[in-house]
Amino acid sequence: MVVAEVIEGKLSRIGKNLKSSLIRDLLKYATTPGAISFGGGAPDPETFPRSELAIIAKEVLEEEYKFALQYIPTEGDPELKREMIKLVKRIYGIEGIDEDNILLTNGSQQALDIIGRIFLDDDSYVIMERPSYLGAINAFYINFPKFITIPLEKDGIDVDRLEKVLKELDEKGEISKLKFVYVVPTFHNPAGVTMSLEKRKRLIELSEEYDFFIVEDDPYGALSFDEEVPDSIFKMAGPERVILLNTFSKILAPGLRIGVIIADKNIIRKTVMAKQSADLCSSGLNQRITARFLQRYDVLEYIKPTIRIYKEKRDTMIRALEEYLAPLGAKWNKPGGGLFIWVDLPDEYDTMEMLDIAKEKLVFYIPGAAFLVDGERCHAMRLSFCLPPKDKIVEGVERLRDVLIEYKGR
Amino acid sequence: MVVAEVIEGKLSRIGKNLKSSLIRDLLKYATTPGAISFGGGAPDPETFPRSELAIIAKEVLEEEYKFALQYIPTEGDPELKREMIKLVKRIYGIEGIDEDNILLTNGSQQALDIIGRIFLDDDSYVIMERPSYLGAINAFYINFPKFITIPLEKDGIDVDRLEKVLKELDEKGEISKLKFVYVVPTFHNPAGVTMSLEKRKRLIELSEEYDFFIVEDDPYGALSFDEEVPDSIFKMAGPERVILLNTFSKILAPGLRIGVIIADKNIIRKTVMAKQSADLCSSGLNQRITARFLQRYDVLEYIKPTIRIYKEKRDTMIRALEEYLAPLGAKWNKPGGGLFIWVDLPDEYDTMEMLDIAKEKLVFYIPGAAFLVDGERCHAMRLSFCLPPKDKIVEGVERLRDVLIEYKGR
Repeated sequence: MVVAEVIEGKLSRIGKNLKSSLIRDLLKYATTPGAISFGGGAPDPETFPRSELAIIAKEVLEEEYKFALQYIPTEGDPELKREMIKLVKRIYGIEGIDEDNILLTNGSQQALDIIGRIFLDDDSYVIMERPSYLGAINAFYINFPKFITIPLEKDGIDVDRLEKVLKELDEKGEISKLKFVYVVPTFHNPAGVTMSLEKRKRLIELSEEYDFFIVEDDPYGALSFDEEVPDSIFKMAGPERVILLNTFSKILAPGLRIGVIIADKNIIRKTVMAKQSADLCSSGLNQRITARFLQRYDVLEYIKPTIRIYKEKRDTMIRALEEYLAPLGAKWNKPGGGLFIWVDLPDEYDTMEMLDIAKEKLVFYIPGAAFLVDGERCHAMRLSFCLPPKDKIVEGVERLRDVLIEYKGR
Repeated sequence: MVVAEVIEGKLSRIGKNLKSSLIRDLLKYATTPGAISFGGGAPDPETFPRSELAIIAKEVLEEEYKFALQYIPTEGDPELKREMIKLVKRIYGIEGIDEDNILLTNGSQQALDIIGRIFLDDDSYVIMERPSYLGAINAFYINFPKFITIPLEKDGIDVDRLEKVLKELDEKGEISKLKFVYVVPTFHNPAGVTMSLEKRKRLIELSEEYDFFIVEDDPYGALSFDEEVPDSIFKMAGPERVILLNTFSKILAPGLRIGVIIADKNIIRKTVMAKQSADLCSSGLNQRITARFLQRYDVLEYIKPTIRIYKEKRDTMIRALEEYLAPLGAKWNKPGGGLFIWVDLPDEYDTMEMLDIAKEKLVFYIPGAAFLVDGERCHAMRLSFCLPPKDKIVEGVERLRDVLIEYKGR
């Protein structure tokens, strides 16, 4: 096709290198009738407070249309920022934050994109966990930085390995090109693990010693089943060292597209300029609705039933894994919260290759390779337990067993 | 401040080069009590169909929460895309567009940002009108392309000058690095002019001859007061040559943040991947509300009273300009639609410098320099007539006269 060739010749380096996300492509199959999907991280829509939001939306449009339907400040709705300050204090015990420390974004993905834009060049280093959240990999990737990945252990990033890498960078005279270390310390996506308090403290010490920022991405911290969550890195080290990302996508509803960057005022100033160029401002309607919801309801009380359901689903999935996948040599962690279980299979299973059989058997997961910077061969997979009902979780894991057996037999 | 220094050292090339927008800073002053602002392009909030949207929002949240509050496809709500196809046919007479030709964005600014990302590198050329929409300048700027600007005349871009520039690029062997020409052909922002049909055809011929894309940005085409608008460039040349941008910000409400890119499927495929990395998806709530509004009401009929009001305001402003600014040597165009009048003052007026006096006298405009790529000295200014009531328009122009007189006297 002529047009395709013309276009290819006109594309930028970014344009040429953009790839379609595996998850995106998988989600198309996952809606096949009869399919059971452990793929996406989309919350159960029945947990959305739809009636409350419907009443609030009507009121906001009738009474606050001058704000809600107009352009709003790039930084976000001042009312929602004030609610955010209260919420951050309740969730993390973080104090001393004011409106200048906050940028409201279109979901966390825009926060990641903006962080990547303002910090990363093609001679920059960025350090990620292995595996890491693929939305972050994608967002940082388009700035073509040098990725360094550090293995993730049961209690978070391998800080000894991290220190070794930092030392090497320092010896090479490259340490000043390291911009930040990106971590999801609590109920990790995809790995489900939580970084210990001790490792959080080591990470902060290293950030002081080697002068880098820590990007602490915490979409799941409020979704704790039974674990005491260690202090947030931001709470311990403050905005001098830490950029904290959060979102309402998992505790309220993704469709409102509200994420937040909490950081030093000087960083926020730059993120605001970047957002201005990216989309001028977010929707005042969505932000004002969210602000009014937070004023009227206790969102942390409100999600407790949801968390109970997620906990039961986690337990159901763990039991099914024990019954169906343990005999085949599978290993996994038991996450204390969040949405994901990371299942490690014996070496001979290439979970990417195995997808074809999974499609036939109508069960979906995300292959581990999606969460690796270089997309290398991987014998792990991410299972999300939040969306399917409990009986389907059991049936889906049983189907997974059949997929493994058939893959091995081929 | 130590943190500020640390941050400066960590910033990327983009991060270091981001500047705060002049308009943004001005808007803060414009809300001073007693101020009259001809600054922003924000529509009159009383024109927003708030009651209709309130009812629809409530219904969508109650009945379509599974879509509206969940993650939606990156491309946008399929229902809104279908409405968009019908609207594009009605407004432009464009046929043969299907859903694969459409990406819904967070307002036009995100469309501009994505276009810049996928096409522009630092060795690329991009051609803009002079003056040009500053949101486009900002969005393209962060990719550090080489800007070439072509003067705007009363009937649109100077095509002879454009041809000369293209020839020069060709002779230098650089023409393949020209990615696109960006134009706002109808009711130009900031200049208010409309490109003639003849010039549109010449532009298309040149795009064939020199092999570049035309980015046709048309936020104001539906806001025609009395003029017959020439055929859209996209309608005449099709997706092989043209990328059409549109938005609901001026005909419905900016707070819904809905823009659209209409282009060849292969380009859309790339823009979708870029949006995925930028913010995963837009708000399903806003898009579904807009889709239902379009199904229930005729948006083009609905804005007719608004257009009548804008026309009256334009006439009021033109009369005031004749009375107060013509005697001082000011010249302007009479726009056939849209929101803006571009006022040219004699050489001795530097409209950027003059702002300090304008702030004292509580009247606001956007200095012409904001719309020039290099921000050079400029004796023109953009006046928006959409927001202030008619008596305030007269009073504001009178204040402007006082500003000019005082500036000249200093």
